[in-house]
Amino acid sequence: MKLIIGNKNYSSWSLRGWLAAKQSGLAFEEIQVPIHGDDWEAQKKQIGEISPSQGKVPVLWDGEAVVWDSLAIIEYLADKVGRDRFWPKADDARAMARSMVAEMHSSYFALRRQCPMNIRRRFEQWEIDGDARGDIVRILGLWAEARARFGKGGPYLFGSFCAADVIYAPVVSRFVTYGIGVPGFATAYMEAVWEHEWLQQWIAAAEAEEWVIEQYEMPARV
Amino acid sequence: MKLIIGNKNYSSWSLRGWLAAKQSGLAFEEIQVPIHGDDWEAQKKQIGEISPSQGKVPVLWDGEAVVWDSLAIIEYLADKVGRDRFWPKADDARAMARSMVAEMHSSYFALRRQCPMNIRRRFEQWEIDGDARGDIVRILGLWAEARARFGKGGPYLFGSFCAADVIYAPVVSRFVTYGIGVPGFATAYMEAVWEHEWLQQWIAAAEAEEWVIEQYEMPARV
Repeated sequence: MKLIIGNKNYSSWSLRGWLAAKQSGLAFEEIQVPIHGDDWEAQKKQIGEISPSQGKVPVLWDGEAVVWDSLAIIEYLADKVGRDRFWPKADDARAMARSMVAEMHSSYFALRRQCPMNIRRRFEQWEIDGDARGDIVRILGLWAEARARFGKGGPYLFGSFCAADVIYAPVVSRFVTYGIGVPGFATAYMEAVWEHEWLQQWIAAAEAEEWVIEQYEMPARV
Repeated sequence: MKLIIGNKNYSSWSLRGWLAAKQSGLAFEEIQVPIHGDDWEAQKKQIGEISPSQGKVPVLWDGEAVVWDSLAIIEYLADKVGRDRFWPKADDARAMARSMVAEMHSSYFALRRQCPMNIRRRFEQWEIDGDARGDIVRILGLWAEARARFGKGGPYLFGSFCAADVIYAPVVSRFVTYGIGVPGFATAYMEAVWEHEWLQQWIAAAEAEEWVIEQYEMPARV
């Protein structure tokens, strides 16, 4: 299996695809196609030569199969190694996990635009608008419900590390980078994610990267 | 099982959730929370009383489990009745189906905004911009590839009716409503979807609805 990813410091969807590959327990080769500066077009062209994803990352190659979206990568790998490795067993917990993962996949554009993932940076004063605040409140509400109803067996959203933690891990990084104030239960959850062995590996690699993309280093217009 | 949906004429995600419930083969009760005119807030409040989805539809209730996104509904139901009812069996076909479904779930905002689903209407001249045209070209490319590589066994994207057809059915309706010119293979595919028994049931119900939402009857600013 081969996984194509972008910059570790900036590419939130790459982090998700990579965590999913780790969660599968399968061996995979990592191919990085970083952006140097703002040169999206060059990257899109480079990725376009090896994938049908129109230049987006991550992409998973597995023999004849090619999967070009991180949620699809999770499901494809769950097909391969068993659903229980990625999703809670109980119907009600899995229903919530699948729903909140799908919501992350299709939503929170204000937060994503105004607080792009930037693992190595810390900003003390970062202006966001009411829409981004609404996204944060919604996410904290989902985290609170998952932890309260289904999180008894461990420190993650549904106890053990699962697809929901894979998908929300970049949000944890955003909250850290932009100094978003969160209640205590969320701090504990975020620490558990941050200290996870795989996150620590990814963070170390992100911090070692030298490429800087200016558009992610400046506040979005709110 | 109970499925909460919105207006059949306008709510593309409701159509997807409803087709997924049909595809499961399970009995379900349909609960419609229509919008009368532009009163989103009233609908959100009404749905908010029965679901955790912040007023969005569709929502599936199954005992203690609640699923509030149509892609999550597909996966939840696939867990329940078996994956093969929703997804192609072969790895390479399923990889593509899952990827193009995830892409629909997270993309094509220009097309979605400029050509909202409006099943009963036909517009001969509807102005769209280059971004929406780009979405259309991308979708036709995916349809062409799926049909050519995996569609031998039937008239749908991957032969038999599957989750990919469920997710792209509202796009078929959009192409019909706005008179989007498509190549012959796509016309044949669209006819197969349109003539599907479930689509015909949904279309008849949409045509019988009297609620009109003005914002969907006027061109989006391009």
